[in-house]
Amino acid sequence: MSKVGIDAMAFYVPNLYVSMDDLAAARGIEAEKLKRGLGLQKMALPDVGEDAATFAANALLNLIQQNAIDPSTIGRVYLGTESAVDGSKPTATYAVEIVENHLADTYGSRSFKNCDILDMTFACVGGVDAMHNSVDWVKQDPSRKAVVIASDLSKYELNSTGEYTQGAGAVAVLIAHEPSIISFGNAWGVGSKSEGDFFKPRRYFEKSDLLKSVLAELNLDHSDEAVSQFIEASNSSFWKDPSERIEIFKEEPVFDGQFSNACYEERITEALAHFNSQDATNFLESWDHLIFHLPYAFHGRRIIFNNWLNWVKGSDALSELETEIGSASETDAKDWNKRAYKSQLYKNFVVQKIAAGELASSEIGNMYTASIFMSLLSLLANALSTNQDITGETIGFIAYGSGSKSKVFEGTIESGWKSKIKPINLFETLKTRDAIDVETYEQLHGFKVSTPVATNKKISLDYIETEPTNYGLRRYSIK
Amino acid sequence: MSKVGIDAMAFYVPNLYVSMDDLAAARGIEAEKLKRGLGLQKMALPDVGEDAATFAANALLNLIQQNAIDPSTIGRVYLGTESAVDGSKPTATYAVEIVENHLADTYGSRSFKNCDILDMTFACVGGVDAMHNSVDWVKQDPSRKAVVIASDLSKYELNSTGEYTQGAGAVAVLIAHEPSIISFGNAWGVGSKSEGDFFKPRRYFEKSDLLKSVLAELNLDHSDEAVSQFIEASNSSFWKDPSERIEIFKEEPVFDGQFSNACYEERITEALAHFNSQDATNFLESWDHLIFHLPYAFHGRRIIFNNWLNWVKGSDALSELETEIGSASETDAKDWNKRAYKSQLYKNFVVQKIAAGELASSEIGNMYTASIFMSLLSLLANALSTNQDITGETIGFIAYGSGSKSKVFEGTIESGWKSKIKPINLFETLKTRDAIDVETYEQLHGFKVSTPVATNKKISLDYIETEPTNYGLRRYSIK
Repeated sequence: MSKVGIDAMAFYVPNLYVSMDDLAAARGIEAEKLKRGLGLQKMALPDVGEDAATFAANALLNLIQQNAIDPSTIGRVYLGTESAVDGSKPTATYAVEIVENHLADTYGSRSFKNCDILDMTFACVGGVDAMHNSVDWVKQDPSRKAVVIASDLSKYELNSTGEYTQGAGAVAVLIAHEPSIISFGNAWGVGSKSEGDFFKPRRYFEKSDLLKSVLAELNLDHSDEAVSQFIEASNSSFWKDPSERIEIFKEEPVFDGQFSNACYEERITEALAHFNSQDATNFLESWDHLIFHLPYAFHGRRIIFNNWLNWVKGSDALSELETEIGSASETDAKDWNKRAYKSQLYKNFVVQKIAAGELASSEIGNMYTASIFMSLLSLLANALSTNQDITGETIGFIAYGSGSKSKVFEGTIESGWKSKIKPINLFETLKTRDAIDVETYEQLHGFKVSTPVATNKKISLDYIETEPTNYGLRRYSIK
Repeated sequence: MSKVGIDAMAFYVPNLYVSMDDLAAARGIEAEKLKRGLGLQKMALPDVGEDAATFAANALLNLIQQNAIDPSTIGRVYLGTESAVDGSKPTATYAVEIVENHLADTYGSRSFKNCDILDMTFACVGGVDAMHNSVDWVKQDPSRKAVVIASDLSKYELNSTGEYTQGAGAVAVLIAHEPSIISFGNAWGVGSKSEGDFFKPRRYFEKSDLLKSVLAELNLDHSDEAVSQFIEASNSSFWKDPSERIEIFKEEPVFDGQFSNACYEERITEALAHFNSQDATNFLESWDHLIFHLPYAFHGRRIIFNNWLNWVKGSDALSELETEIGSASETDAKDWNKRAYKSQLYKNFVVQKIAAGELASSEIGNMYTASIFMSLLSLLANALSTNQDITGETIGFIAYGSGSKSKVFEGTIESGWKSKIKPINLFETLKTRDAIDVETYEQLHGFKVSTPVATNKKISLDYIETEPTNYGLRRYSIK
């Protein structure tokens, strides 16, 4: 059976960012805490007219153009996102539409006619789910190729504890036989438990309550009759809607950071055990690189620590650690664990296996579903720029989605990786972005500006239809 | 290679319905038009506290209990839905949580611990996508079993042209090797094109516009200053939200019925051609049964007609048709097509291959993703109750999702179907539901009642959390 995996990659990150120095100064906190503690440097921000569909379209277009792929050879485009722009029509269809139209001169008007297009949703792990299913599909026929896109917008409330972990963008990968970049093993570990650690609920309001509160605050008659009369007389489509319930969507999630960390750690521990039950690899010892879902750059090194420590305790490495930080039996457990986290042994582990995958995250922030794919790209681009020969080395992928599920799987770096990673120019491209100040960021965040800040944006939402039969349909353009 | 397909099925439909006689009378139109023209009899309606998560949980619980399945043997629960209750946390996790907790006494507290759970979204074809991917996954290992759920709420605006095609419910199927009910072939035809024929957009309002219109309608100062002052002084979480943009979610779709029919017909024609390019079966001749996505009961027989007519024109059946309705060359084409639609030859085709799959739809209405699965169940339950031996017969599945995509695939009825369909009691269960009048229906539709109408509801939304760290998290209970 031939190998199946990632044959090509591409990415898109918005052109705008805010530096952590600026944001920390505006919020009156120490920038060093964010930079040294969490690994945050810059936070990518969408411009006016950018959304999960435009990010995905940019990444898909880059993938096709950089690798000269004929779209009609792509059997599926599966999108993982938790920033969908519609409740029924997949965001993937908008992304494909933009690209299909743009490439019509080259490949004909319906180059995706027989392509299976789909959105998958499970918080930040949905992109991995899309890839898992696409690998299974490609496996069955040597001619099959699939594109997987992870595209998201990580947006938190202004002044919230999550504000520093925003970010945006997309990564697209081509799944094929005898791949140039990564081939995947057959074992997939899963850990699942329904949790409310992070989610995007609708906020419910009663329309009459809302109006009553307005009338009351204006010191006007706010009786049921007054409210009914107002609604009947109103010309506003908002107020005259026959439903008493108003359901508000917000991009900003509801979350509990500490609880979510605990869920992440528990699920990945379960998924690692499930993976090992199939593969029996001692993953922490044998994997050359660890790639995580990264809500912030240093999250992986923090969340895997207890698993690492448990592994050390059962291995020859324990004596080495105890030589460095003292015996576990003679020290308070919590204190010893802290020392272990700061030990040279753990630092070496992080530097050797994790740090290269964090570099892009520091420059971009949280990309939700796309974070783990960007971390892989970061590892590869860094190996290229530092002249490392990593062909044949193994990567352990540790994915997590709130709500909650972890998936663990293994990849092996294939010999064609350099030639496919080079044209991507990851770090060079990230250096060409424009910094914006905190005031501009806040205006964009609150939808208080209507014209794009950057001037070099290729794909953008042009307008939204307003006729009754297509009210809300999104029209994108590409320049 | 062993066969893979549907080994068990279960369904859930809400206990409440409105009859077409009542709804037609209330709207002042002829009931016969809906009944004879579209095949509509009753329309299932969710009670207070019912949503896509409770439908899915009911169907999953029925599947597990009716077939004594140990949940720990289920490797995935994939849900197709366009009625998701959250933008990030899969509706499938809520459904599994309800069932896992309920079954904890029997199967332990974490019986879905290593289960891969996921939502898929592509309008009404998302359930078929979930099944397609699960079949591919199960194929790879003889011990694998997967559950696919299609769960949806079809809700249209009061007095709209879509009002008669509402419905609700879920179907769950178990995918396994050597299945009792249906085995699937390897060919899957796909037709895709991004369209806006039906979708669920968010409606955007500018908060200051909304307030200005209220102040103006009250003949108050509605200057920018007045609006700003009001927002600053307000105690309402709705008005004081820092975002200028208000995004409204509505369950009711935006759609263009005629255009959607055209998209449906074009996509299935493309998917049939794509299927035939892999399988080379003359599908309309060889398939014993045709199962469609049914937005209303008679939609399949209407939408396949042109394909049928094209097939007739190229086959021996043309002379039979021309004997019945006259020669095509001697008649106006449109008129001849109309005669062909009303011909005995087409009626026989519909009765033999399509009608049995329409029966449940007439009683339930549109179940979106679940409609095609319910149509299969209808075919099988009808064959059982009329003592037909259909083992070995083939089924052509013709799926459609607006936005737009069609999938076409083939199944063969396996010998164990009777024993697995009998305990489901489809038509008997549908007869035990409660009719509600149009006034009650309108109250439920507009969220103007807060206590359930039916008294025998097992699974229900209990409450929604309101603390900042879990605001909006849904809490369900099972009785």
